[in-house]
Amino acid sequence: MIKVTLVGTGTVSQHLQQVFSKTENVGVIKVISSRGDSLSKALKMSSKHDKGEPELEQPDIYIVAVTDDAIETVSKKLVNSKKIIVHTSGSVSIDALPKGVRKGVFYPLQSFSPGRKVDFKTIPICIEAEKKENLELLQKLGESISESVYEVSSEQRKSLHLAAVFVNNFTNHIYQIGKEICKENAVPFDILKPLIAETAQKLDALSPLEAQTGPAKRKDMMTIEKHLEQLNNKTHKEVYQILTKSIKETYGEKL
Amino acid sequence: MIKVTLVGTGTVSQHLQQVFSKTENVGVIKVISSRGDSLSKALKMSSKHDKGEPELEQPDIYIVAVTDDAIETVSKKLVNSKKIIVHTSGSVSIDALPKGVRKGVFYPLQSFSPGRKVDFKTIPICIEAEKKENLELLQKLGESISESVYEVSSEQRKSLHLAAVFVNNFTNHIYQIGKEICKENAVPFDILKPLIAETAQKLDALSPLEAQTGPAKRKDMMTIEKHLEQLNNKTHKEVYQILTKSIKETYGEKL
Repeated sequence: MIKVTLVGTGTVSQHLQQVFSKTENVGVIKVISSRGDSLSKALKMSSKHDKGEPELEQPDIYIVAVTDDAIETVSKKLVNSKKIIVHTSGSVSIDALPKGVRKGVFYPLQSFSPGRKVDFKTIPICIEAEKKENLELLQKLGESISESVYEVSSEQRKSLHLAAVFVNNFTNHIYQIGKEICKENAVPFDILKPLIAETAQKLDALSPLEAQTGPAKRKDMMTIEKHLEQLNNKTHKEVYQILTKSIKETYGEKL
Repeated sequence: MIKVTLVGTGTVSQHLQQVFSKTENVGVIKVISSRGDSLSKALKMSSKHDKGEPELEQPDIYIVAVTDDAIETVSKKLVNSKKIIVHTSGSVSIDALPKGVRKGVFYPLQSFSPGRKVDFKTIPICIEAEKKENLELLQKLGESISESVYEVSSEQRKSLHLAAVFVNNFTNHIYQIGKEICKENAVPFDILKPLIAETAQKLDALSPLEAQTGPAKRKDMMTIEKHLEQLNNKTHKEVYQILTKSIKETYGEKL
């Protein structure tokens, strides 16, 4: 049994609580708010246990699931702990955790929304630790909830997070622009959903380089001009222009 | 039985042949290349049949599945036909078809790739016709292969096609940028695939406006600056900047 204490009560923490509670060999022994003095109080309790009280309250791993900005401050309070301390962020280095502790990272690469269930089995867990034994425990914890656990350095994780901003945040915003175009012209956005699904699913069989179609790839200037005329929102026009330029460059160089 | 003649032999034509061949009440009686004089020859044959030869070779509908540029030229050859003539394009008006014919549009809104199977049942078919009886036949043809058939005007279809360029072409290119970032940093692109899938699937439960997350929405300038520094490709940097601006504007106005 791997005993876990979650620090932070946000969306990632909630999702981890849920999945751990259904996982046989993992036990969440405590969820502590990172705000106010909840963490300090809990640590005092825990240090009493160190001096002979029941082991039950002692975790193997502290998972600090707080916002990026708060990781450093919150984890400092755990500086005296002898347990593994990990954060769950894609863009923060392992070095944000205090010196001298058994530090690590446990980053589930997924976009979590409050109240929306996710299937952890399919979520890649990116782990990092300085020492082999700590890495092994994180590997075990990761494998208990997911089928894909990757060892990823802080540098690689930073790139992954940047790529994730593109494929998640930017893609979602592009859906939003598509929805606005539909709304302006009284067409139901639902008509586009099968296309959106297929665009994503196609990646299982084709690389995005192979899957690319459309006026920008064909360098079909007539259609591009017509589209730009149709767009009323100035920023959406700029989005269209720069993505068209980027596609043209990609295929201009490679064909 | 609805009898169909397909004009054109490209990807859309191939996919339609496949699905019609499995559909009980539809028969593809001929597939004619739009190039050279194949169509003229076929039409001569067909006009002989008009004069008393067996009806078998006469379609109810000509589906002109050719590139946008070729629709006008190719369909002109059918000007004397008394059958319904439709094109399959998202961005071309119904008026590109010759005057005086029973014209219409049969536009399956999906991104077709050669060799990749699609499930037509889930593909929205956008139909248009000038006369009710022609529309009804297109409706029947659409419903025989798909669960969603929409009557969409040329003007609406133009917007749909523009929105489709965003959610398909641009999204796919964003995947491509994500893949390049991974490659540069020796991280497998596969790690991002569950995130890509979830970003698309989330639309079943949340609108893109609700689903948006990330540094641009949070106006987290520190992360945005770090990301821009990480990007080596100048055009990818511009894509990042303009999409970040667009997200900021969307939430700046509405929050």
